[in-house]
Amino acid sequence: MTNKTLIFKKIPPPLLLPIAGEHLVIEDRPFDLSNPPPPGGATVQVLYGSYDPYLRSKMRTPDVASFTPPFALDGPVTADAVARILQSASPAHRPGDLLLAHLPLAEYAVVSSETLATGTIVPGPRRVPPGGLGVFLGPLGMPGLTAWAGLYAIGKPKAGKVMFVSSAAGAVGQVAGQIAKREGLRVIGSVGNGEKLAFILDELKFDGGFNYNKERPGEALPRLAPEGIDIYFDNVGGEHLDAALENMNLHGRIVSCGMVSQYKLEQEERYAVKNMFLLLQNRLTMRGFLVYDEEFGPAHTDEHQEKLYDWLVDGSILAKLDITEGIENAAEGLINLLKGKNFGKAVLEIKRGGS
Amino acid sequence: MTNKTLIFKKIPPPLLLPIAGEHLVIEDRPFDLSNPPPPGGATVQVLYGSYDPYLRSKMRTPDVASFTPPFALDGPVTADAVARILQSASPAHRPGDLLLAHLPLAEYAVVSSETLATGTIVPGPRRVPPGGLGVFLGPLGMPGLTAWAGLYAIGKPKAGKVMFVSSAAGAVGQVAGQIAKREGLRVIGSVGNGEKLAFILDELKFDGGFNYNKERPGEALPRLAPEGIDIYFDNVGGEHLDAALENMNLHGRIVSCGMVSQYKLEQEERYAVKNMFLLLQNRLTMRGFLVYDEEFGPAHTDEHQEKLYDWLVDGSILAKLDITEGIENAAEGLINLLKGKNFGKAVLEIKRGGS
Repeated sequence: MTNKTLIFKKIPPPLLLPIAGEHLVIEDRPFDLSNPPPPGGATVQVLYGSYDPYLRSKMRTPDVASFTPPFALDGPVTADAVARILQSASPAHRPGDLLLAHLPLAEYAVVSSETLATGTIVPGPRRVPPGGLGVFLGPLGMPGLTAWAGLYAIGKPKAGKVMFVSSAAGAVGQVAGQIAKREGLRVIGSVGNGEKLAFILDELKFDGGFNYNKERPGEALPRLAPEGIDIYFDNVGGEHLDAALENMNLHGRIVSCGMVSQYKLEQEERYAVKNMFLLLQNRLTMRGFLVYDEEFGPAHTDEHQEKLYDWLVDGSILAKLDITEGIENAAEGLINLLKGKNFGKAVLEIKRGGS
Repeated sequence: MTNKTLIFKKIPPPLLLPIAGEHLVIEDRPFDLSNPPPPGGATVQVLYGSYDPYLRSKMRTPDVASFTPPFALDGPVTADAVARILQSASPAHRPGDLLLAHLPLAEYAVVSSETLATGTIVPGPRRVPPGGLGVFLGPLGMPGLTAWAGLYAIGKPKAGKVMFVSSAAGAVGQVAGQIAKREGLRVIGSVGNGEKLAFILDELKFDGGFNYNKERPGEALPRLAPEGIDIYFDNVGGEHLDAALENMNLHGRIVSCGMVSQYKLEQEERYAVKNMFLLLQNRLTMRGFLVYDEEFGPAHTDEHQEKLYDWLVDGSILAKLDITEGIENAAEGLINLLKGKNFGKAVLEIKRGGS
């Protein structure tokens, strides 16, 4: 039998998007389900894969340093994924169990004992969250943990304060904003189009928002937060950061989570921030982090899994997913995310129509 | 009798320096030493006054907000000072005791019970530090506490790490750098002339340094700290900050203590920082603070007074003071500081030749 797999075929030029069919290709790779799994490992059916911006940084030559290793050329594109165990050689995993792990984007995968040890077994079927298994890759996955850890460890939300979150309909922003709302903050969001603006205002019930393609942050923020901003959850950087700095209150805190406006630029093209003087004048704290840093993700995983699950169940957190259906569309779905065309957490459903 | 006093006579134009004889004037104000002190207060002879950059921000109209109240027009310029108690109506203060408090820059002063309560009585004559009473306004005063609190609360120094401190011969920088040296860090400093460079290298024994009027920080830092910077103690801002960002190691920490290169500029003239992207990429922490903020100065006062006194006595911390002699030169001394012409902590010795 064969196994449809998203293959990293060719390294795209630095800063440019990969092209489907050239850099990212679907191939039928041989696979034999009747083979036993490796010692202590398992054979799995991959159900959902997570599309995240960092995957672009893995499409590089191995000599460039990064926090994440590069993809092997002609090997599978790997991502955080939800899979069902078909065969297990591990006493801790039974066929039918669900696994959360970093896996190939493919119909099937052989999972080593090492990967199995790092993966989380999703607790029983009763724990499938509202929104389905894809939610384990969004609010209950890495983006949700990023929002949780950044907000609590750096933002330190307190009821009555004002938070501004950029890219507020995105995978991280929508969770950060909703948690802050639930903690009693006033939340203002920025998004890139009118549909997303309606979403954060009407569905997520944020207190204010603007479309940054229609209004500049420096004009919108004084209008939407005349009392100033106490926490800025930054997913965008650049002009957004500058405008936030200008509107921060004394002792405000900036969670530097992403700078999507800046990643694809050469160093000399990057936005120069005019208001750093205000960081001193208003005694602000600004901190960059990565979810894998010990005091961020790892330190907050249990609390995040426990509480956010309950909040999804009680409806106080909504999950907006952008699902690409079918492994045959895997390259296009990933490229759409890298173009910023997704609306909500981008997820690949390997088998059209679900598990 | 009369009391020579530095008077705030006229508000200087925004961002410009005051002029001696116009904005700052020495006047003989009436004073009667035979009058009893107010209830619970004292009459004092002022010995040393502290020249600090923030004093410029008190020379303004009262309608402009700031962390510090403005000077009253035609009233005395006040500053942190060391004084000797002449007459006391407070049971806790005896004639001859030394007082550290915010006082007029004048020969004599009447001290209210409120001011007396906020002031520190310098413990007995045995505790006069090497360098003399002026040291209570430098390493053992507000600038020293600023260095201490910023370094420990934000920088979190660890032996073997590398610290870069700008304005390294200044009142705060010389203390921050020396403490870091004592904690086992490699310390690199920037200064504005060759004499100061010789001072930090030969006397303070810093591991490296450069004259920023001869070499740009962006060129000097890779040369002096090829292994990268773990802590940047920033007194300067602007181009220094940008160059430091470019040379910071993963998880580096920036103590934003001052931005002397930026204070006197209008907002639109301020330096735009090009490397903020690297704050995220290298997961840096950057924090602005003021020594009066609760978790900074107040939280560190006891430890600072205790340990730094011992380090001055054992010679591991040197105090470099820049002393202006005589109350009649008080205006010129202050203006020199605001021009950056001082070398070491700027102090006014009220009575030429000392106490």
